[in-house]
Amino acid sequence: MPGRNFNSGGQASKHLKNMLHDPNRVYVFDTTLRDGEQVPGCQLTTPEKIEIARELEALGVDIIEAGFPISSPGDFQSVVEISKAVSHPIVCALTRANKGDIDAAVESLQYAKRPRIHTGIGSSDMHIKTKFNSTREEILERAVEAVKYAKKSVEDIEFYAEDAGRADVHYLAQMVEAVIAAGATVVNIPDTNGYCLPNQYGDKIRFLKENVKNIDKAIISVHCHNDLGLATANSIAGLQNGARQIEGTINGIGERAGNTSIEEVVMILKTHQLGLHTNINARNFYEISQLVRTQMRMPVQPNKAIVGSNAFAHSSGIHQDGFLKNRENYEIIRPEDVGFPSATIVLTARSGRHALKHHLERLGYNLDKNELAEAYKNFLTLADNKLDITDEDLTMLVAGSNISVNIFQK
Amino acid sequence: MPGRNFNSGGQASKHLKNMLHDPNRVYVFDTTLRDGEQVPGCQLTTPEKIEIARELEALGVDIIEAGFPISSPGDFQSVVEISKAVSHPIVCALTRANKGDIDAAVESLQYAKRPRIHTGIGSSDMHIKTKFNSTREEILERAVEAVKYAKKSVEDIEFYAEDAGRADVHYLAQMVEAVIAAGATVVNIPDTNGYCLPNQYGDKIRFLKENVKNIDKAIISVHCHNDLGLATANSIAGLQNGARQIEGTINGIGERAGNTSIEEVVMILKTHQLGLHTNINARNFYEISQLVRTQMRMPVQPNKAIVGSNAFAHSSGIHQDGFLKNRENYEIIRPEDVGFPSATIVLTARSGRHALKHHLERLGYNLDKNELAEAYKNFLTLADNKLDITDEDLTMLVAGSNISVNIFQK
Repeated sequence: MPGRNFNSGGQASKHLKNMLHDPNRVYVFDTTLRDGEQVPGCQLTTPEKIEIARELEALGVDIIEAGFPISSPGDFQSVVEISKAVSHPIVCALTRANKGDIDAAVESLQYAKRPRIHTGIGSSDMHIKTKFNSTREEILERAVEAVKYAKKSVEDIEFYAEDAGRADVHYLAQMVEAVIAAGATVVNIPDTNGYCLPNQYGDKIRFLKENVKNIDKAIISVHCHNDLGLATANSIAGLQNGARQIEGTINGIGERAGNTSIEEVVMILKTHQLGLHTNINARNFYEISQLVRTQMRMPVQPNKAIVGSNAFAHSSGIHQDGFLKNRENYEIIRPEDVGFPSATIVLTARSGRHALKHHLERLGYNLDKNELAEAYKNFLTLADNKLDITDEDLTMLVAGSNISVNIFQK
Repeated sequence: MPGRNFNSGGQASKHLKNMLHDPNRVYVFDTTLRDGEQVPGCQLTTPEKIEIARELEALGVDIIEAGFPISSPGDFQSVVEISKAVSHPIVCALTRANKGDIDAAVESLQYAKRPRIHTGIGSSDMHIKTKFNSTREEILERAVEAVKYAKKSVEDIEFYAEDAGRADVHYLAQMVEAVIAAGATVVNIPDTNGYCLPNQYGDKIRFLKENVKNIDKAIISVHCHNDLGLATANSIAGLQNGARQIEGTINGIGERAGNTSIEEVVMILKTHQLGLHTNINARNFYEISQLVRTQMRMPVQPNKAIVGSNAFAHSSGIHQDGFLKNRENYEIIRPEDVGFPSATIVLTARSGRHALKHHLERLGYNLDKNELAEAYKNFLTLADNKLDITDEDLTMLVAGSNISVNIFQK
């Protein structure tokens, strides 16, 4: 086997004990550079990956999945360079359950201060039969062998039971127990195809927590996909039922409809009193979101939760009025808490008098009630015909345009 | 009061009985043209709204919320014209709980074959105190008065209890009971700020279902926002606990982080056996998604569930290999079922030999094992340096480029 042996029983072992020490700590495993980067058009050069890895470190993620080393020379090299570039986070490399993949991963992690191997195999009958043309017994054996083999070189081994979302839960429990016995420190229960409903996924995690004898020797990890729009909800359901690591990406990018959005899960834990906490510096979210969208050429829709350009924009009259009276009427997260420039009151044809007054005062115009009524009438006609109302438009409006309509004239 | 009186006790009443007849039917209430259209930059002209309304009718939505008539002359006119343009769906107009708003809505719905008024008021203590500067008792009275007033003109009255997600559930139950007694046919329980977790929102709906005496005389509607990425999950939790109408938009557009994505909820009901069904023609989803993104100038991110451009794209080697053996290994919805052009195997640096072979065969090249191994090695080097691998690149590759690297040479 190439590469040095990391399994000295020292730092990594101590680290695992620390990880299991606080029962309310949720570990954040970022796979933007692996599950995210494998998306069409998202490929990065090694220097670009290093820049993102450093920002992930500043964000406070606990684990960076840096690549899938056997898959290409570029990916191998990126794991090497990311290992050198970051100090605090665990650096993780993906493998399938075979020696060649694991050897390449071990080699690529040679400079990691805290290396982790992420190995695994399919756990659903569909994957076992039609992907591996195998049996449950054979697959279980390959899983255990892979963990044992990886464990010879690296202490911190995460095992993924691919397509666990559709796997028989009794077989899954058997697999999880066996890989923990073989040395896995983290067991990842992926809903690979984004299939589960939150109650189903939560039940699956609870079943493992309650029925796998050695489950307290490992951390349960949730890795969800968003094919039905449920990745975030499923991740939260997993945490509510005993998981303590969540896997996801910045902006929710990833294969097909993407992975769990890390920013959504973290802000849910901050907004709701579930007794769980992460190490994330949420004020970095907006900046890293911008970096990922730009470097990976993967646009974020304006209505994306937490990091979309409209996520904190209030446009309807009812909302603007309520927001101006008390921002908490329509705001459960302060935009500055995720590093967002500021909440915005945007003027459109749906805006009310209060919003218009707010903007006019900002520009230095203090209108009395009648003047405001007149200006508002003119504003509505303008806004019905123009998408963006600029400060210049407002100035023109007040300066004395003569447009006038009555709502019931027609 | 302006406008004709629709409350003849005829068609609408019969319609409500029909709606309550099938306990497993989920009604789809589209608010793309109201809650969606009020977003900065999304404003449409009346002809554009009519085009979308006609496509919504073809999609099979049960209710089209066409606008908020009092808010602007343009919005008023759009409700008039949409009422004329569609035949089957109920056309709904939004109001606050006051006579002026309701009068405008009644007037705007004069040509609707099946009109509905959507009126309501805040139900959380925060809204009652800081938005209305009022008391629970006063607000309850205003709610009942608004429903009674609207009911004089229109049979089908939907009541929204704004910010219900943060409202005291006992007060909410009292409000729901009172408005049903006053004539509401649908009670909408909005999570206006996208605050709730799925279990919390589901519990709220179940509480109403179990504790409001006259609840079986109305349909419970769920209206969720996506501020924490949970709108779809909350809507499903609502349906699992007794709601039978879901409100949402195409592409999930809407105020801030948007509304529930109709396409996600509908495809969940088709994918999971919850015993619930809608009237939606899911094969129209892709086309209407394209129309809305174009006309409303609101981009959809590639990793958006169901309708994003990558939603059915498989790019990693592991996934492509599994997909080529049996597409169900990595596909829970067939793209053609939502009108998507086709599932795609995209070649990137993360692609495996099987995917390369698949594309080379498509181009007419049948390589033996050694030739494929050589081509794959060259392909990886190319893909590490080029984002989009075209058919021309593949042809060049086979035709005899001499690029060669070994994964462990470095």
